[in-house]
Amino acid sequence: MGQPQQGGDTEKPPLGVGMVGYAFMGAAHSQGWRTVGRVFDLPRRPVLAAVCGRDGQAVRAMADRHGWAAAETDWRALIARDDVDLVDICTPGDSHAEIAVAALAAGKHVLCEKPLANTVAEAEMMVAAAEAAQERGQMSMVGFNYRRVPATSLARSMVAEGRLGTLRHVRVTYLQDWLVNREFPLTWRLRKEAAGSGALGDLGAHIIDLAQYVAGERLVGVSGLTETFVRERPLPGGASSGLSAVSGAGGGTGAGSGVGTVTVDDAALFTGRFASGALASFEASRFATGRKNSLRIELNAERGSLAFDLERLNELSYHDHTEPGAHAGFRRILVTEPDHPYLDAWWPPGHGLGYEHTFVHQARDLVHAIAASRPPVPSFADGLQVQRVLAAVEESAEKNSVYTPIAV
Amino acid sequence: MGQPQQGGDTEKPPLGVGMVGYAFMGAAHSQGWRTVGRVFDLPRRPVLAAVCGRDGQAVRAMADRHGWAAAETDWRALIARDDVDLVDICTPGDSHAEIAVAALAAGKHVLCEKPLANTVAEAEMMVAAAEAAQERGQMSMVGFNYRRVPATSLARSMVAEGRLGTLRHVRVTYLQDWLVNREFPLTWRLRKEAAGSGALGDLGAHIIDLAQYVAGERLVGVSGLTETFVRERPLPGGASSGLSAVSGAGGGTGAGSGVGTVTVDDAALFTGRFASGALASFEASRFATGRKNSLRIELNAERGSLAFDLERLNELSYHDHTEPGAHAGFRRILVTEPDHPYLDAWWPPGHGLGYEHTFVHQARDLVHAIAASRPPVPSFADGLQVQRVLAAVEESAEKNSVYTPIAV
Amino acid sequence: MGQPQQGGDTEKPPLGVGMVGYAFMGAAHSQGWRTVGRVFDLPRRPVLAAVCGRDGQAVRAMADRHGWAAAETDWRALIARDDVDLVDICTPGDSHAEIAVAALAAGKHVLCEKPLANTVAEAEMMVAAAEAAQERGQMSMVGFNYRRVPATSLARSMVAEGRLGTLRHVRVTYLQDWLVNREFPLTWRLRKEAAGSGALGDLGAHIIDLAQYVAGERLVGVSGLTETFVRERPLPGGASSGLSAVSGAGGGTGAGSGVGTVTVDDAALFTGRFASGALASFEASRFATGRKNSLRIELNAERGSLAFDLERLNELSYHDHTEPGAHAGFRRILVTEPDHPYLDAWWPPGHGLGYEHTFVHQARDLVHAIAASRPPVPSFADGLQVQRVLAAVEESAEKNSVYTPIAV
Amino acid sequence: MGQPQQGGDTEKPPLGVGMVGYAFMGAAHSQGWRTVGRVFDLPRRPVLAAVCGRDGQAVRAMADRHGWAAAETDWRALIARDDVDLVDICTPGDSHAEIAVAALAAGKHVLCEKPLANTVAEAEMMVAAAEAAQERGQMSMVGFNYRRVPATSLARSMVAEGRLGTLRHVRVTYLQDWLVNREFPLTWRLRKEAAGSGALGDLGAHIIDLAQYVAGERLVGVSGLTETFVRERPLPGGASSGLSAVSGAGGGTGAGSGVGTVTVDDAALFTGRFASGALASFEASRFATGRKNSLRIELNAERGSLAFDLERLNELSYHDHTEPGAHAGFRRILVTEPDHPYLDAWWPPGHGLGYEHTFVHQARDLVHAIAASRPPVPSFADGLQVQRVLAAVEESAEKNSVYTPIAV
Repeated sequence: MGQPQQGGDTEKPPLGVGMVGYAFMGAAHSQGWRTVGRVFDLPRRPVLAAVCGRDGQAVRAMADRHGWAAAETDWRALIARDDVDLVDICTPGDSHAEIAVAALAAGKHVLCEKPLANTVAEAEMMVAAAEAAQERGQMSMVGFNYRRVPATSLARSMVAEGRLGTLRHVRVTYLQDWLVNREFPLTWRLRKEAAGSGALGDLGAHIIDLAQYVAGERLVGVSGLTETFVRERPLPGGASSGLSAVSGAGGGTGAGSGVGTVTVDDAALFTGRFASGALASFEASRFATGRKNSLRIELNAERGSLAFDLERLNELSYHDHTEPGAHAGFRRILVTEPDHPYLDAWWPPGHGLGYEHTFVHQARDLVHAIAASRPPVPSFADGLQVQRVLAAVEESAEKNSVYTPIAV
Repeated sequence: MGQPQQGGDTEKPPLGVGMVGYAFMGAAHSQGWRTVGRVFDLPRRPVLAAVCGRDGQAVRAMADRHGWAAAETDWRALIARDDVDLVDICTPGDSHAEIAVAALAAGKHVLCEKPLANTVAEAEMMVAAAEAAQERGQMSMVGFNYRRVPATSLARSMVAEGRLGTLRHVRVTYLQDWLVNREFPLTWRLRKEAAGSGALGDLGAHIIDLAQYVAGERLVGVSGLTETFVRERPLPGGASSGLSAVSGAGGGTGAGSGVGTVTVDDAALFTGRFASGALASFEASRFATGRKNSLRIELNAERGSLAFDLERLNELSYHDHTEPGAHAGFRRILVTEPDHPYLDAWWPPGHGLGYEHTFVHQARDLVHAIAASRPPVPSFADGLQVQRVLAAVEESAEKNSVYTPIAV
Repeated sequence: MGQPQQGGDTEKPPLGVGMVGYAFMGAAHSQGWRTVGRVFDLPRRPVLAAVCGRDGQAVRAMADRHGWAAAETDWRALIARDDVDLVDICTPGDSHAEIAVAALAAGKHVLCEKPLANTVAEAEMMVAAAEAAQERGQMSMVGFNYRRVPATSLARSMVAEGRLGTLRHVRVTYLQDWLVNREFPLTWRLRKEAAGSGALGDLGAHIIDLAQYVAGERLVGVSGLTETFVRERPLPGGASSGLSAVSGAGGGTGAGSGVGTVTVDDAALFTGRFASGALASFEASRFATGRKNSLRIELNAERGSLAFDLERLNELSYHDHTEPGAHAGFRRILVTEPDHPYLDAWWPPGHGLGYEHTFVHQARDLVHAIAASRPPVPSFADGLQVQRVLAAVEESAEKNSVYTPIAV
Repeated sequence: MGQPQQGGDTEKPPLGVGMVGYAFMGAAHSQGWRTVGRVFDLPRRPVLAAVCGRDGQAVRAMADRHGWAAAETDWRALIARDDVDLVDICTPGDSHAEIAVAALAAGKHVLCEKPLANTVAEAEMMVAAAEAAQERGQMSMVGFNYRRVPATSLARSMVAEGRLGTLRHVRVTYLQDWLVNREFPLTWRLRKEAAGSGALGDLGAHIIDLAQYVAGERLVGVSGLTETFVRERPLPGGASSGLSAVSGAGGGTGAGSGVGTVTVDDAALFTGRFASGALASFEASRFATGRKNSLRIELNAERGSLAFDLERLNELSYHDHTEPGAHAGFRRILVTEPDHPYLDAWWPPGHGLGYEHTFVHQARDLVHAIAASRPPVPSFADGLQVQRVLAAVEESAEKNSVYTPIAV
């Protein structure tokens, strides 16, 4: 497989990355690790040491394509490698807990894709392991990459600076439409045992984390409503492909005939309250026809408002309510200025970034945290709290939408 | 006061309008009645016969300003006038039932502003009166004017034609921000005894009706959450002014000192289910900083989606999901073509209409219905059903957001 | 025909309006005169005294529809009427000069639709007449109604306040698409003898005036390019209809068979320089497929920028370049606040206006000017200067686009 | 410096890249070469062999940062290297001709940044060299990277499919604002001897190429207007930094005191005609306050229109004029579907790309062309023709904007 790809300066101490899973998230994380040291000044030099997947041929091809120095077919072997300092978990949620706990036990730093786990119990176990490991100097982070869009990061800093004042409303939707077609096959993302939940865990986890991150406060209770619009779908054919249809750690195999039952939600709506008393509205759906990756968040507060749309990720809308009404209005900040988050390392103003750059930024922040022995955010504890919100939504949905407090 | 303003052709039989209430809605309805016959071909000629308000001097000034032939200070006197064929009720919700029932008893047609009433019981009484009157040839309509925006009307017809197919999601917000300032006074709209409820009844009633109208189906249950962010406000001063602060039928008088308790909601959120199984999300707020009159509705269905924003009321967004994906996307239909609803009577393409034209269109549709002895929509029964949704939201909000069926 | 429509208060001295021409502009002006006194406090009460058109039956129907007290078929008779104080000229450009000069000679105030005339010579004659009349207390105004959109009026005041600083660029387009279809008939607007020019005079006149108005300075030279894409078109049939196809003062009659030659431009582009050295770019076209009434103007200056789009006429975009770059961006001012131009008389924030309201505002400003014996703007001299710019564009276009100074 | 970065599969024949210049364009091209083989299936494997710049220390740091295997300080040495198959020229325009001609003479393929040269004569020499080299199997391409935005590429294919029909209008602007501040220093981009021209060559070259590419036809004549708003600027200080202020091949050193004369244009406007008779409007400026990288292009044609804005580069607006008017409108195609250009190799729908991906796509297309011995586009001849348009604009601007034919 040749020389490992190296993210950046050769004189810096290396940080060996071992990645488990190599589908959509695997490709995105590869891009992040390969690019980060070329763009940012880092205290350590990320090395793409090894990637792991169950299908040997496929994982070797992926390693060759993406510049991973080695390929493994057993994640335990990957964890055991000396050249791996950091384990990057990109598998479906059902294997997160086992891999993460083992990696931490093996003395590795861990980056785990979201949602942290499929259940609160698993997530609690992971937090315990992460906190113990942290005392040994190992860092853990969960991959809520949408915190690393420059525009959302700018939103967070504007809230933190007090520009918005008392929060009144948070309104978030994450809308996709890849399940509208009733013939879309029953992939792992539609089976509860692999995915935990549907739109709720996949999309809802993102917007719960993002809303709490930008708002700087947590939800205290929710009232949920979920639905599975299409309850039976064709089983996927042999070598299923397509980013949404492939199992991250192994690939989907199926009879390719007959139908199966969808066991997760197609859409989830919930309202809730933040600690400050602000009201929240959330909607996650894979049936929002025409909306491809429409994560929108808006905050309304006493001194101003912010709005963001992932489909226009280089922009942040800001209304400053302290201005005279005659000249006030939502302004479109093009978040490409050198003093915007992450932007001093990139291109001149107006030359926008894309989706994948969130993974570059995530890698940057994690490398800095590891080098400084400073716990990165979002922590596993943050991931657990999101899990608790998800669990409360599910519990509420099962109980006729009754308002359900978030466990602390 | 001189000759009455006449909406259109002098050779047509007149339709005498008597309006009760003369504040914001009164001005808007006056504009509608005065203009409708100048723009549309009508079977009858609306005559602005008389307007009624408790403050004689103010109502006479208003009559003179807006071209009403006479002014009354007692609504019973207005109803009794021979030159009044239609009573147009623009007062706060607490007086709707009494005036409407009396007007129907007096043999008049009735147009009643939304929400139909402050309680379900009142609304039921009004429906009974309206149905009895209808058998005598009197027509009743409730003033959900946002059905008469050409773009929403086009949306309805596109849904009715089957362009959207099976409905999955309806997402509606109605956001304003005039209560963000804590010093805004405690006007009648913030007192339960006059207004019935706050954002819920004022804004929520609009979006419940509009969503059901465009979708062509009804909500079957809801889960609600309401909040009053600012619980005490200064009492309004003597001659309160400003459209939001004035009582429609009497004018606000107040000590102008001290504070009082806000007894209605500042914001209301609710989720729900439509009869077809589609999921719905509603939010009404007077605390959405920077949003002035932002009524937005989006429908996602199996064959397409529609989106509308009242702040850009000449536009309708439409995504046709039956098109090849490579060329598909939300298109912005500028709803100003001659074959768009109501538009053949107006200006050339691209020369947009405004808010007030909804009242012209409402008048047009009502005059046609009366002339044809055809029951207009939305009927009082439609208004009652909206009232039942509002009641279910309030009930749910009081019961920890538990899912609450809509009474049928 | 009954009582004349009266715009407002009965106790104020009347201002009798006599309108010549009754097609598109006639309808729009009627709306303006009828509404203005109902909405604004005026020193005089506009009375719709008489309307004039060559087709007696049509003009009587129009008078009845729109509330004009009398109908005339000879504009000289209209001018001679004692109950006409103000002559409002809504005919095609070829008759403006004759009517205006006669009306002024008869002691009337004059409002003349744009473009002021079809030639500079005619316009000069009109200015001379207007200036002489002004000494006798008669006022003249040219109908550049787009100055009266609240958003453009706000733009002007922001420039006048010095918010923008040194001007660098003005970029204006006025795009329509009603001539894209090659079968659209050869109406008066496509014949040089009636219309003077095509897109240049019709649309270009608007944007020249608007650009100079908002910028607060004048063009000093231009370089032009014009084109007629479709040179032959079918002759219009008997009773041509459609706002664009009808002659304002007489109605179009045609054989309805055969084709004729288009003698005006379909599109005109020109660049130019403002007195301050700012660069300007103009484009007017009736062939911009999909653009219905897309008048867009943008100004870039040292301290900020402004942008406006007539298809979203309730909005003004403003970039404040004196703000820190990290929070700067074009803001969308919803021009519906009570302290925005004209808005204190209308609806609450966010309840937008439409195209026709520009005529209400034009009427308001003219009535105030007449009552105060204060010369209104835009004056005939302003209209003449626009005519000179149009002439310079045509001259440049004929001379291989060579830069052509504007005559002073 | 360690192992060279390799763009992709190790078993494929390598393609050694040697890059001259290492500033803004150098960084962008590095990103392109490093990423292309990781994302796309390529017939050859790009190897980042060597980078060249005059400042040895700076170029070595850049090589280390970006993964170039070697650093050179003399471009002749770079050209002479055996491991360099392709010379990628990222220097200012004044050195393009010499380097390109020498590289072609040395048997290398050449990719040259735009504009191809600073003069027509240089460009002609380069074309001659490129055509001779092509007969020897060497390929040459000019770096008009905006052809490789998926949305512009989609636009081109839609035009080529005949979806638009007869073209009427092309309207293009490229607006930036980095010169608004009068204190911005006199960098190489503002000196004629290094940059050739100002906004015209830098931005104008991009939009001339893009407009002709998307339209599928060429300009035949232009009428131009240029201006230098700020004629004196401070000389740049010692270690000038900032992408816009740095010399690509050497770095800017300056006294850091005193002022110098700007010898290029700050803004350039021109109108023109396409071969088909369509009219064109172009504007390039560095003084468009608030516009950061606003390249906008719109085409209006008989059967439809297209619009694109580089600040929202994942979107293409399309109006299909063959649809019924009542449902037609500009649709926003989110150009992120797998069947959109380049997109099958990237992320799921809605997960957008950024500016730098144009360089990945450019590298992809060039590698394919080289491997297939198929001349890539845009060719040097295409670059020369753009140069001739630029020259015609300058000539016209010098001759009072007179319409000036483009030399063929």
